[in-house]
Order: sequence, then structure tokens, then C-alpha cells
Amino acid sequence: MPTIDVHTHVYPPSYMSLLRDRTTVPYVRNFPDAPDSTRLIILPGEDSPSTPSTSRGRPIGPEYFDISQKIAFMDVHGIAASVISLANPWLDFLAPEDSPAAAAALNDELQSLCAQHPKRLYFFATLPLSAPVDAVRAEAARLGTLPMCRGVIMGTSGLGRGLDDAALDPIWQALEEQRLLVFLHPHYGLPGEVYGPRKGEYGHVLPLAIGFPIETTIAVTRMLLSGVWERWAGLEVLIAHSGGTLPFLAGRIESCIAHDGHLKKEGRAEKMRSVWEVLKKNVYLDAVVYSEVGLRAAVEASGKDRIMFGTDHPFFPPLDGEETEWLSVKTNYAAIKQAFDGDADAAEAVLGGNAARILKLDV
Amino acid sequence: MPTIDVHTHVYPPSYMSLLRDRTTVPYVRNFPDAPDSTRLIILPGEDSPSTPSTSRGRPIGPEYFDISQKIAFMDVHGIAASVISLANPWLDFLAPEDSPAAAAALNDELQSLCAQHPKRLYFFATLPLSAPVDAVRAEAARLGTLPMCRGVIMGTSGLGRGLDDAALDPIWQALEEQRLLVFLHPHYGLPGEVYGPRKGEYGHVLPLAIGFPIETTIAVTRMLLSGVWERWAGLEVLIAHSGGTLPFLAGRIESCIAHDGHLKKEGRAEKMRSVWEVLKKNVYLDAVVYSEVGLRAAVEASGKDRIMFGTDHPFFPPLDGEETEWLSVKTNYAAIKQAFDGDADAAEAVLGGNAARILKLDV
Repeated sequence: MPTIDVHTHVYPPSYMSLLRDRTTVPYVRNFPDAPDSTRLIILPGEDSPSTPSTSRGRPIGPEYFDISQKIAFMDVHGIAASVISLANPWLDFLAPEDSPAAAAALNDELQSLCAQHPKRLYFFATLPLSAPVDAVRAEAARLGTLPMCRGVIMGTSGLGRGLDDAALDPIWQALEEQRLLVFLHPHYGLPGEVYGPRKGEYGHVLPLAIGFPIETTIAVTRMLLSGVWERWAGLEVLIAHSGGTLPFLAGRIESCIAHDGHLKKEGRAEKMRSVWEVLKKNVYLDAVVYSEVGLRAAVEASGKDRIMFGTDHPFFPPLDGEETEWLSVKTNYAAIKQAFDGDADAAEAVLGGNAARILKLDV
Repeated sequence: MPTIDVHTHVYPPSYMSLLRDRTTVPYVRNFPDAPDSTRLIILPGEDSPSTPSTSRGRPIGPEYFDISQKIAFMDVHGIAASVISLANPWLDFLAPEDSPAAAAALNDELQSLCAQHPKRLYFFATLPLSAPVDAVRAEAARLGTLPMCRGVIMGTSGLGRGLDDAALDPIWQALEEQRLLVFLHPHYGLPGEVYGPRKGEYGHVLPLAIGFPIETTIAVTRMLLSGVWERWAGLEVLIAHSGGTLPFLAGRIESCIAHDGHLKKEGRAEKMRSVWEVLKKNVYLDAVVYSEVGLRAAVEASGKDRIMFGTDHPFFPPLDGEETEWLSVKTNYAAIKQAFDGDADAAEAVLGGNAARILKLDV
């Protein structure tokens, strides 16, 4: 069974132009104090005047927008097929009137890139979530005409008020009807104040290592608490970074629900879908957790038939540009090898079999 | 081997008086719209005018301050000995000038309670962290004279600027010298905005289930990043709630450190203690994670000789007051039973053997 990467990003050329034209986050720029380094600034505050040039966003090169570099990366790492997706922050920042056309153009561009690499590339589309809900629904409906599309990637802000917003119901309905999986991915992290006064000394570690997975965990828990899966029992979500922290915290979340006086009084607690049930019936997890410990927890929470290999390429590149095999990828490969020591079938399923079956890929 | 509870709280009578005399968080009060329910308000915003009475803080009764109820709880749940600790927010809110005397009085009170129940009660002391550092150090030094003291409980704010504050060094030094373990416990959670506009509908679930463990995870990671364990290699920390989310996120934290351009340029990355090494050499974890999945991850991260049973009593009581055995406790017992199915020695170690050895308890 070939290896399939379900968590791998691109900023297609049209999106790059969009970022280059901007002067507020998100944007791409060469700063005067480091003119040779083109920087991608996507997280709030990454460009504050006090930020050292070495932790100002991240260097960006053709690995972000040149699809031949994606293919080369796949070849080096033994990846047969990739399900590419636009990276954060998608189109969240666009004005409502610009968003539908941009989404349609981007999705067509991704469809075209994939069609040029048959059996090697598929994609998760982007919805114009800042637009009125009818426009979002229309683009979701149009995705059925794009043969390489296998779902949509989505951040945690939804239409601007989070994924527990009842106004999302028509979108969930459209996605459920078309059996389009939602790839749920963080972007906004946590407010900078939670990292304390010394955060500038720690580079991107705290927001990326902790802020990202917590944003995801909160978003999914809000979906659960608001009854999204009670209303849309067929809605399927692939959660980035092995669920954020959901496999580890599921027990605590379930216990807090069972012990909440307010939810009990409102009659909500007993009606609510169990976190464990949602993890096993509605959720898929990628295997981007960088440890055997985390991966095992993900497998125990969701099942070895629901976990799918990913790389997060082109993020987390080797700091020494000369390395060809990426440490971040090797770490995730090693975790799969260790977690499934003696169960080659399960390892193959996680590396590619699950993705091929769940996403109906011809590889 | 008897069962030992290392995560169990009290608000001794003197602390209760302190809370009853206050009118801002933290405080204890009967509200006019629910005069029969004495409420404990300890989390910021729990008393906002828009908060429904059923999610305004939590009911508080003698289980919080009457030590005979602690003993009765222990008897019902088969707990031989408990290492009691003042619950959050400890003395964080006191004026610098009031803090040292309050800490001394509280620690003496806890010593006295424990002495009245030999072999059944030990305690983690409280430091006057809002006072000048010399006063904190003096109280830490005095703890050696209290024979039932086995460490100190501490929140994540330290002297007000977090646990990565270099001004804490004299405290870490004192604790390391006296081999007093730090029981690290959350209180402040995350800023309310991260839970979105519908948070009021979800009772306490989001701040307790997610905010608490993330606060802990961020605090420990900041300690690591700032080099606390490089300077104080003997400093031992018992992390509440099975490490917050540290066992699950350790791989991602390690990977983010290894891939951070700023840390590399500063020469920090290669000097930093590995998260995994700290988990196995400096960290202990309680078994308060409410699931087999979480507990297994904790065991794999820190080792089965470093995990200790806990209840979080008197928090998470049964909502139906008639239950005698607490669901929250049964859930954690069941997780231990499932995680160590077939390894009775490890189960016994986690239930009590580890605590007896690590904390030198005579039970």
C-alpha cells in the first residue's frame, strides 16, 4: 500500500500574489533589516517591531508555491499521493464581496494542479467563509464538479463566530449531503498574553506547539457542546495534529460535562453526544503528532482505521537547508513504526490504506 | 499496598473566613437570587451579572473545610492516606504585607490537621508568593520544621510573572535544597474570549476541561524553555491532571524547538533539556485524567513509577447529592484498572506505592 499524505499545504501562485499585495497580516514581504529573506507573516503579532528578524514569520520560498517542489518532496520521502490544501489563514481575511470569486479561482487552480499529476495529487478545497452563507453554500455545491476535490479545509473561526455558530448549519448540511469531509485546521492560536512576558525569547515554540493544538481542541469541543453532531450525525471531520489534544483530554471533557450543574439543569448533558463516540464515528485524525506516545493515544481514541499519515509540508523544514530528508517527517514516520511495532497491517493502513479508503483515492 | 490520594484539596477554616470577608474574586457568598446556595467564586468572570445562578461558581459546603468529611470521603473510596493541599487560588491574591503571616498560619493549621490524623493525612504547604522573595524563601525554609509537610502546591503565576521568571531562582534553589516537591496546579485558565460568544451556554466545561490543563502545559513549557531545569536539575514537579496535556504534546513541543530558527540562532535549542528527559527525571504526574487513553499516555511519557493516584476532591462532586461513591473518582479508578490490566504491580504502584516511596509516607 503506497504512502499518502493528507496534511500538506500549498499557497498557489494566485494566493501568493494576494499575500504579496498586502501590508497587514497575513502578508509576504522582505524587511529592510534582512532584505535577502522573504518572510511569510501569517500569525498575529509576528511582525511587531520588537520581534527579532529571526522569529519574524518564517522564510518562504518556492516550496510554498511551486508544485514541482511538492512532487520532489514527495519523491524524497516515499509519498505516493498527497491531498493538498491551502494553508492558513485561507480566505478568512478577505472582504465578503471578494471572497467567492477568490475561492472559486483557487479551487479551480488546485483542481488544475491535481489534474496535471494524476494519481499523485488530490485536494481539499477552500470555502469563501467571509461571504454571505448562500455564497458559501454555492461554492460547496460547485465542488462536486471538481473531480480531484475530496473535502474542504476550514479554520476554527467559521463565519467569524466559531464552529458552534448555528449560522453554519446550512454549510454543515451541504457538506454532509455531498459527503465532503472537513479538514479542521488551526490558525489563530491563543491570545499572546497567555505566553507571558518572556514569550519573545522562545521563537514560535509556544504558539505553534501549544496554541495551535489548543485552538483546535476548543473548536471541536464547542462543536460538540453546541450539538453540531446531534443535528448533523453524518458530518465527518479530519482534525489536524492528531486532534490537537482531544485524545488526551476527551476523558476530562466528558467528566466535566457529566459534572456540570448548569448543563444538567438545562437538560443538555444527557442529550449530548459522547466525546468518545464522536471520536470513533465522526472524527478522523492525522498522524502529525511527532511522538509514539501521542500517536498511540490518537489510535486508542479514534481507532487505527481512522488515522492518516501527514507531513505538514512545507512547514517545519530542516533548519540546515542541506538536509534532504526532513526531520519533521522522519519523526512522524518513526512514531508510526514504533506505535505499530508488530502490526504491519495497521502501520500500512495509517500510512496510506485508511486515506485511500476514506477519501476514495485512486493511487 | 494502600491507596494514596496526592491530589485532594481543603480550604481550612481560616482560609474560609478570608474568602467570606471578600467581595471580589475569589470569595464565598450567598446571592440574593439563590439565598440557600452558598457559592464559591474562584475563577475570573464566574460572577458576572449575565452568569446564570446555576453556573455561578460552585456550591460550597463542609466538604471543603471540615476535615472529618475528608476522612469520611477517604473511607468511602478506600483511600488510606491523603496528601492534602490548599485549593486554588491559594494566597496569590493577598497583599504582599499580609501574605507571609497568612501562609505561616495556614501551613501550621494544615500541619495540625494532619497531626490529628496520623498515617492518614500529609500535606503540601502554601508559599506567600505575593510577598518579597526573601519572605517566600523564609517560609520555604520553615517548612522543614513541619513534619507532615511533603512539598508545596503552587499555581502558574509564580511571583506574578509566571514560572519562567528568573526572580524565582532563590525559591527553586530552596525547594531543591530541601527536596520539597512542587505540586503544580492551574487556576487562571485562559482568557474568556477564546471560548467564543456562546461560552455562557456551556457551564464550566470549557475553562475546566481545556483552560486548566492548557494553563498547566504552558507553564511547564515556559519553565523548560527558560532553562529552569538546566539551572535546577534536582527540582521535582508533580504536575496536576496528568501533566495538563504535556504527555500528548511533548513530541510537538520537542519538534517545534528543534525547528525554531530563532532558538537555533540564539544557540538555545541544543542546550535545552529534552521534554522527554524532564518528564522522566524531574516530573511526576497524578492520575487525574479520567480515561484509560490519557493515563496510558501519561505512563508512557513519565514511567509507571512516576504516576500517582488522585481524586481532586472536593471538586467534581456527584450532581445527585445522594450518590456516595463519586463518579469522578470511579472514573479514575477504572482508568487505572484498564490501563494496567494484567500488571497488578504497576496498578498498585500508581494507586499508592509510588506516592509512599516518592513522598516518604508512613502508611
